[in-house]
Order: sequence, then C-alpha cells, then structure tokens
Amino acid sequence: MRVFIAGIDGYLGWALAQYMTARGHEVAGADLLLRRQWVEEVGSISAIPIADREERLAAFKAQYGKDLDFRVGDLCDYAFVRDFFQSFQPEAIVHVGQMPSAPYSMMDVEHALWTQTNNVNSNMVILWAMREVVPDAHLVKLGTMGEYGQPNIDIAEGFFEVEYRGRKDRLPFPRLPGSFYHLSKVHDSHNTHFATRIWKLRATDIMQGVVFGTQFEGMVDVPALRTRLDFDQCFGTAINRFCVQAAVGHPLTLYGAGTQKRGFIPLRDALRCLTLACENPAQRGEFRVFNQFSEAYNLVELADMTQQVGTELGLKVEIAHYENPRQELEEHYYNPDRENLLKIGYEPSQDVKSEMKVMIADLLPHKAHILQKSAVLVPDIRWDGTRRRSRAIETSPA
Amino acid sequence: MRVFIAGIDGYLGWALAQYMTARGHEVAGADLLLRRQWVEEVGSISAIPIADREERLAAFKAQYGKDLDFRVGDLCDYAFVRDFFQSFQPEAIVHVGQMPSAPYSMMDVEHALWTQTNNVNSNMVILWAMREVVPDAHLVKLGTMGEYGQPNIDIAEGFFEVEYRGRKDRLPFPRLPGSFYHLSKVHDSHNTHFATRIWKLRATDIMQGVVFGTQFEGMVDVPALRTRLDFDQCFGTAINRFCVQAAVGHPLTLYGAGTQKRGFIPLRDALRCLTLACENPAQRGEFRVFNQFSEAYNLVELADMTQQVGTELGLKVEIAHYENPRQELEEHYYNPDRENLLKIGYEPSQDVKSEMKVMIADLLPHKAHILQKSAVLVPDIRWDGTRRRSRAIETSPA
Repeated sequence: MRVFIAGIDGYLGWALAQYMTARGHEVAGADLLLRRQWVEEVGSISAIPIADREERLAAFKAQYGKDLDFRVGDLCDYAFVRDFFQSFQPEAIVHVGQMPSAPYSMMDVEHALWTQTNNVNSNMVILWAMREVVPDAHLVKLGTMGEYGQPNIDIAEGFFEVEYRGRKDRLPFPRLPGSFYHLSKVHDSHNTHFATRIWKLRATDIMQGVVFGTQFEGMVDVPALRTRLDFDQCFGTAINRFCVQAAVGHPLTLYGAGTQKRGFIPLRDALRCLTLACENPAQRGEFRVFNQFSEAYNLVELADMTQQVGTELGLKVEIAHYENPRQELEEHYYNPDRENLLKIGYEPSQDVKSEMKVMIADLLPHKAHILQKSAVLVPDIRWDGTRRRSRAIETSPA
Repeated sequence: MRVFIAGIDGYLGWALAQYMTARGHEVAGADLLLRRQWVEEVGSISAIPIADREERLAAFKAQYGKDLDFRVGDLCDYAFVRDFFQSFQPEAIVHVGQMPSAPYSMMDVEHALWTQTNNVNSNMVILWAMREVVPDAHLVKLGTMGEYGQPNIDIAEGFFEVEYRGRKDRLPFPRLPGSFYHLSKVHDSHNTHFATRIWKLRATDIMQGVVFGTQFEGMVDVPALRTRLDFDQCFGTAINRFCVQAAVGHPLTLYGAGTQKRGFIPLRDALRCLTLACENPAQRGEFRVFNQFSEAYNLVELADMTQQVGTELGLKVEIAHYENPRQELEEHYYNPDRENLLKIGYEPSQDVKSEMKVMIADLLPHKAHILQKSAVLVPDIRWDGTRRRSRAIETSPA
C-alpha cells in the first residue's frame, strides 16, 4: 500500500516510516522540520540523539535498500501537497505532522494563534488535496484523547447514541479540551467529519492517549535511524518526562495532586495501531473514530511505576509534587471506551510498566547528553498566560 | 456602558453602533472594511446604497452630536486590539466582525483556509486581549444556529443534560455544521468556552438565526447612516435574497425542495437581543449560549410569505426551485429552544411577515441600482468545490 506520512521527520512519523516500510508498504512523506526548531526554541534537545535529514535518508537507503521520498515542505501549502499527492498517488495518508504540545500553545497569544492556524490549515489542505487528487484515499488523522477532556460520563469513541426529551440520535461526542493545542485537534475533528459528509472521503480520527517509549518492533540498531524522544515541559509527554527524570536522577515532576487520569500507549503499539488503521480503511464517506490507548492510570500510579522500575534498574527515584502549571481537573471520572481498535485486531504487545523499563535502560547511556538541558525538567508555562517556574510542594524520598 | 463593536462597518455592526448610541451607551469599534471588498469580489453591491467610512462618521456626528471612535484595523492584529482596549476600556465587546458567508468559504481551498484563519484568529485575539487588558469585560460573540446543523433531537441552548450508561453530565451540545464558515463558528465556540474556564472571562455566545431586514428601532432617515443589505449568493441570507428578488421581479430562488427549516430574526430584533445581552452580562467564568431567533419556518413557507407580501404590494412574485448548490439535509427534524433571551426580557417586536413587507417597500426605490448586478441572483458555488450555475428545475407562477 502507498502510504503518505505527513510529519515524517517527527517522533511518530520517522518511526512509522521504518515500521511500515519493513512491513512491505511503500512510504513517502513530507516535513518542514519544525519540531527540531520548536524544541530548540524551548531550550531543549532530543534525549536520544538524532541524525539530520540527509543522514537519515542515507541510513534508510542502506537499511531498506530503497530511496525514501521525503520532501521538505509546508503541509499548509496547497500546491506542495497537491503536487506530492499527484506524483505519489497515496492510498493512505497518515497525518502526524502537527504542533503537538499543550504548553507550547499556551505560552502567549502568538503561540496560540500559530498552533491553531498551523494545525487546522495543514489538515484542511490535506482534505482539499484528497478531494482533488485522491478522493478514494484514506486519511488516518492523529488527534488526542485530550479532545474529550474529563466528562462525568463514559467516553465513547467519537459518537454516542443519545436520548434527549424522548428522541434519539447518534451524535458527535461532546468535547471539552484543555488547551489551545487540544482545541486545534477538536477543530480538525469537526472539519474532517464535515469533509467525509460532503466529499465522501474516508477518514479515521485517532484519539491517541499519551504516547511514550523509544522502541518499536523490528527497530534496527542504527543511530541515524533512531527517532527523537523529548523530555522538556512542552514536547515531552508526562511518561517520557518521568522516564528521563528517573534515568538522570531528577525528581519526577508530578503536577499537582497527580490524580489526573489518562490513557497511555507505547510507541510500538501506536505504530501498530496506525498501521492497522491504514490496512483496514474506513468506507467512502465514513468518519471513524478510534480511542487509541492500551492502559489508563493516574499520574501518581505512573510515578510509582517509574519508581519501581527505576529501583529494579538500580536507580534512586524521588517523586515530587509540583505546583500544577495547568488549569485542569485533578479529581475526575475517567472511563473511555477502546473497542474499535480491538475489533480490527489490535492486541497490546507490551504492558506500560515493561515498556518503561526498556525505555529507562535505553536512556541511561545518554544521561550526560540530557543533563546539558536539565533546566527544562521543571515547567514554567502557566495556563494563565504568564511564566513562572513551578515550585516543588512535597517530595517523597526514593 | 462602554461597548466595543468588532466589525462596526458591517450589516449588524453599523446598525448596532447607532442603536446603542441612541440608547445612551458609549460606542467605539474597529473594522478592516473587508465586507465591502468581499461583496465586490463576488460581483455584487449593497442593495441599499451605503456611504463610505468618512461620510458615515460625519453623518454620525451630525446626528448623535459626538465623534465615533471607529478605527480601521485588523482584528487579527493583537497589538491593534490590545491598544484599542487599553484606550477605550470596554465593558462589553460585541464581536460581529467575521466573514459571515457559507458559500464564500466553500468556493475553493484558499477561501476555506482564509475564512477559518480570519474568523478563529480574530476571536482568539479578542480573548487574549480581554485577558490582558479588560478581564472583567463581557464578550458577546456572534455565532450561528448553523453550528448545530440538523440533529434528530431538540436543540438545546449550547449545553444539555445528558444521561449516558447510567451517569449524568451537563455537556456542550453536539455540533454538525454545514460549511467551512459554520465550522469556523464552532471552533470559536470551543475556544471561547475554554477561555471562560481558564481565565474566568464572561462570554455570551449568540447562536443567531437567519437575520434579515433593513430597519431598526429609532433609525433615522439619513442616507449616509443606512446599513448595508446584501442579496448575492454569498452575503445575502435566504430571506434578504427573497425580498430583493420580489422587489426586482426575479423568481425567488428556492434551493432544492425548500423543506429545510431555519430560525429567522429581523435586524431590529437582532439589535435588541445583542443589546439585552450586553445590558445583562454573563458572570465571571460563565459561558452562556443564546439561541437567537424569533420564528422558525421552512424555505417554502418563507417563499410563500414573500409572495403574499409581494402581492399585497402589487408585485408579481414567481417562486422557482433551483438545483441545490449545497449539500444539506432538506427533510429534517428541527426544534431549537429559545428560552434564554426571553428570560432576560426579549419580546419579538415585529413578526417575520410584517418585517418582510417593510423591507420590500424599502427596496423598491433601489430596483434599478440592484438590477445592475442581477447576475448574482442565481447561485453557482457548489459544495463539491466546483462552480456551476444552478438551473431552475420547477417554477410556479405568481
């Protein structure tokens, strides 16, 4: 299958390009290499050192025996995307090419505007280019479980059967996102749903949980092929940050009480799920929503697991509660469905705790590299639009 | 009360500036004068001739005895909006300054991207500027009943109590908008709701029905103070188009079967409602949603009323069914609530049919002026992204 990866230079994109190529798919993709700039802008680096595009392409050819059509270009540029689709004729389009950070979007008005414009426009351009060039292709769009927020009812997958004043309908599940970034994904979901209704496009909207990990199935031990792994307050997910903190001996930075509950999925499973979605496409006109996570925990449970795994590896792991820089519900009900991926064959491959152990072991050789940027381990971007470093309010010893 | 009108040069904005000034409020506002450009771009003019900004300001001063602080500037420019808020210190901000046309947003990818970027960014800029400069001010944001689409259940006002698998919550009412323009308003609603949650802003989101009419309470007979009235496929609402068509002797262009049902509100009542919302502000942190319409009809009923009113005025009015250029449900359930405005004192002042009669009489002197642009009376912008003039499929005689 010909698979176009929008955002092929990123954490998910670069790993997915290799995983799908190894499975026999023909892969091409585009990236403007912005993730590298954003992480530099917030004063950080990838915990796993990564190669530049040219080195990646050379290593890809050496490993997989073929050139990868990876073009540098802006997904918001209609002519660029349309022309790429025309030459490549993708059957599946995986869109993992957006700005993925809540704190980055909350920094100030410029970052908020940029996040929504960039994310929404890139997805709109892809929809219009599909309409014009490849109307039978299937869009697999990365969203986030954060679109739903924390309603006090079970979270369905995208749609729910609702009865209201004696009448029934199947309607989009309400969204209560918690940052301007999360809102951009909600906007995408509405735009994509509309495009499937009027143009009969095929789309799968992936409400992904917090993704973490450094490895994936079939991954080869070639430094230039490694995918990035971020640990700063903006681009590091909670679990990636915890594992990096455990590896370098920094207290785990729990935000607030830590009773916030989330769904989690290892990188290796995220790639499996995205691939399953491509290999089992939506119908023409179908807007399908998958809640993509393998296990749900609250952050205290996650920190405790990090501590246990760290101890098994001979590390001393402290857990600290920091002032929560976000405005979010800390105590809440959380019971999301995740049936749709299981129906097309997803079986979790590795439990969260085992994956954390693989990851921390993987990070240990890079301790000195990471500690160059230790200043980014504590957050300072606050949801009220100001900047102030969170203080540790309580630390429990290792 | 100091009221800032974003979009003060527009159909609603210019009328509102006069109406609120006459009620004793202190009004200021901004506009980039883009509506004039868009209408020219689609080959049309205002049916009621309008004055330029300088003439409007001179006439305003002559009529109301004071200078109007109406600045030309971009609502997406943060420094411009922030500085204006700083000097004017608004207590209410009425945002009627967006691109308001569904067909304009569906014309091609450039128009779709532009619509969403312009509309979403202008509202985001206002929210951030409120946060920084006037956090106690009240945003009255113009949305549209079209955000809801046509669900098969009653349409609540913004939120509904839902029971799902035995648990209950009050959640945002699902949205099923029918164009990239309507989607931009859905995005605004989500962004605004979020800003009220994290920054404790006050906001009222107005889900307005189709607005129509040429007159408002206290309006004075000064040509340079008249507000615009559009009749082209993009900027003319169905009812404004019908009345113009009746006045100039063109068949009423019913799209498809005409069984699509919508809520309608006369301009005079839209101004009353916006003013009532300002005078009865939301609480800090409250996101209040008003469904703003006075009566609901389907398009066939509306065309029949236009015909009856035309006959009373001695006009011959033909009704024609045209190929529907939109993709929309024509047969659907439609039962929206409209309690919230009644609770703060709204009483419909004039029924839809009487208002149509006032309007057609008002348009008759401008028949020759309108007929210069008769080509715009039949739509050609199609929801599939192409352009083709709709054909009349059935005409019923006057």
